[in-house]
Amino acid sequence: MLTINPPYLMFLGDAADQLAAKTADGVARWRPDWCLGQLRLEGCQADIGLEDLTIDQARQAGAQTLVVGVANRGGIISEVWLETLLAALDAGFDIASGLHNRLGDLPALAERAQATGRQLVDVRYPDVELKVGQGTPRTGRRLLTVGTDCSCGKMFTALAIERELQSQSRKATFRATGQTGILIAGTGVSVDAVIADFIAGATEQLAPDNDDDHWDLIEGQGSLFHASYAGVSMGLLHGAQAHALVLCHEPTRTHMRGLPQAHLPSIAQCIDLNERCGRLTNPDCRVIGISLNTSQLPDDQVDDTCKRIEHETGLPTIDAYRHGSERLVEALPE
Amino acid sequence: MLTINPPYLMFLGDAADQLAAKTADGVARWRPDWCLGQLRLEGCQADIGLEDLTIDQARQAGAQTLVVGVANRGGIISEVWLETLLAALDAGFDIASGLHNRLGDLPALAERAQATGRQLVDVRYPDVELKVGQGTPRTGRRLLTVGTDCSCGKMFTALAIERELQSQSRKATFRATGQTGILIAGTGVSVDAVIADFIAGATEQLAPDNDDDHWDLIEGQGSLFHASYAGVSMGLLHGAQAHALVLCHEPTRTHMRGLPQAHLPSIAQCIDLNERCGRLTNPDCRVIGISLNTSQLPDDQVDDTCKRIEHETGLPTIDAYRHGSERLVEALPE
Repeated sequence: MLTINPPYLMFLGDAADQLAAKTADGVARWRPDWCLGQLRLEGCQADIGLEDLTIDQARQAGAQTLVVGVANRGGIISEVWLETLLAALDAGFDIASGLHNRLGDLPALAERAQATGRQLVDVRYPDVELKVGQGTPRTGRRLLTVGTDCSCGKMFTALAIERELQSQSRKATFRATGQTGILIAGTGVSVDAVIADFIAGATEQLAPDNDDDHWDLIEGQGSLFHASYAGVSMGLLHGAQAHALVLCHEPTRTHMRGLPQAHLPSIAQCIDLNERCGRLTNPDCRVIGISLNTSQLPDDQVDDTCKRIEHETGLPTIDAYRHGSERLVEALPE
Repeated sequence: MLTINPPYLMFLGDAADQLAAKTADGVARWRPDWCLGQLRLEGCQADIGLEDLTIDQARQAGAQTLVVGVANRGGIISEVWLETLLAALDAGFDIASGLHNRLGDLPALAERAQATGRQLVDVRYPDVELKVGQGTPRTGRRLLTVGTDCSCGKMFTALAIERELQSQSRKATFRATGQTGILIAGTGVSVDAVIADFIAGATEQLAPDNDDDHWDLIEGQGSLFHASYAGVSMGLLHGAQAHALVLCHEPTRTHMRGLPQAHLPSIAQCIDLNERCGRLTNPDCRVIGISLNTSQLPDDQVDDTCKRIEHETGLPTIDAYRHGSERLVEALPE
């Protein structure tokens, strides 16, 4: 499985705005100890609040990997960045990228990486032995975040639970299945880019046998109710063999992301179908709480919304960003 | 989408036994008009009942494609076959193969194909534009075969329904999703080999808009209850946007194929989950009949088994091999 060596120098390039540096921002938020500084080119409109460092300064501070945490139009590697990326290789950095096109597809980068013996890591492309899922019971405890839709807080919630468990000195590991998550974890597998037959198998490899009191917090993807991506969500659910699910939901969304004609499922439907399918590989699988992304709600509606859903479902309902994840951790089964 | 040009010369190589030529046998069974003859090398232990033809004889008879319809140990292309395959290219044949390794990975074959301007078609490898599924309603009627498990008659049943509809002069097209099916259809997409994000999208492309009175009979794969492959089955179910499902079942199976510890789901569970998930993209989706593969049952138990399941489910229950598919066709919605 691919591995990125921390600490990182976060490369923001010539980002057109703050949103273009969303990936870098997520990494800096969750792995502040790994992010030694940011490197911005002329015209960069983003700032993730780290010290501005040159390549040499970052290298002297101990950074091992330059992380391309920025998306530009088209999701490709900009010509404008090339000089900096080559200089980073020369200075001894690996480079990791979450972009669509591969670092190694640029001949100049591929040649320089080989000449300098450095690693180019494209986190969107799975680097994992293809194995068919087996469903054989594994040791350790596993939680998977699932959703009513895409992009409603599944990565954030899994990370918040990892942080809370670790703050209680309990054994916990975030398991990443998407590009930002992989940069945060330093390893993982982009499950939506695996060959279809191997979705469950890749997830089994991502969260293998572990100590009886260790929790894997597996980042979910998509939704069983998303007409584009439910196959990924299903394979991930079976491969996760989860004891606990946390259902993530964005309460203001009016239709499924990217599908204007498609309604969101109800929370009850979503709990029921995920539990039912999850029990194929773990008979104890159940939803233990609801994590709302209330960033689009007016502040004065947040508490009422949480209370209403908590009342309807009988499950602890929080916004992990506003409230932390302590109540989800309390709800974990022994 | 990949296209294989009929008619075919069926290449059986040095098949160790009849089972090794299972793919060729399936093609010859369902497309007798396309299969002009068989080509067997010294020591071949299989016979699919076609006339033995040399390459030149087959070419003169009008054959366009040599179909490698044989599996040898390891599923690879045998050195022993190479001379014949090269001669076929020289004679003007395309070559199509359902094996794991690609024809074009053999340099000698790749070079000769280029030199002769012939096509090498590896049906296991999808050749389809990657598009994300949309779930947008499509015109035409679609039926998908689903299963309690893998390998329980999903391709056979879809083909039997196509044949019955066509015998009634109704518009019907078999849509292939696996390697034997693709050789039978002359086109298709091996959905289990698509990148996970695109399972539903590839299925949408496989069965696009069509006439209101036209039925697509889509070959199912795996099972929503198979811990290895359910992601594929789910994406296929959503992408198919099926009006009708036929549930395929092998009544003597004691565990899920390849997973000795995993029980089969009940037929009722399987109907319920498939309908529920299928309705995400087609609210009319329902199971209209059961197709049993009774090849492992003693003859005198077949009728009782069909009757029992028909009584339990209230759905027409047949073995398409023994009884034909007329009763399934009668059960199709208008």
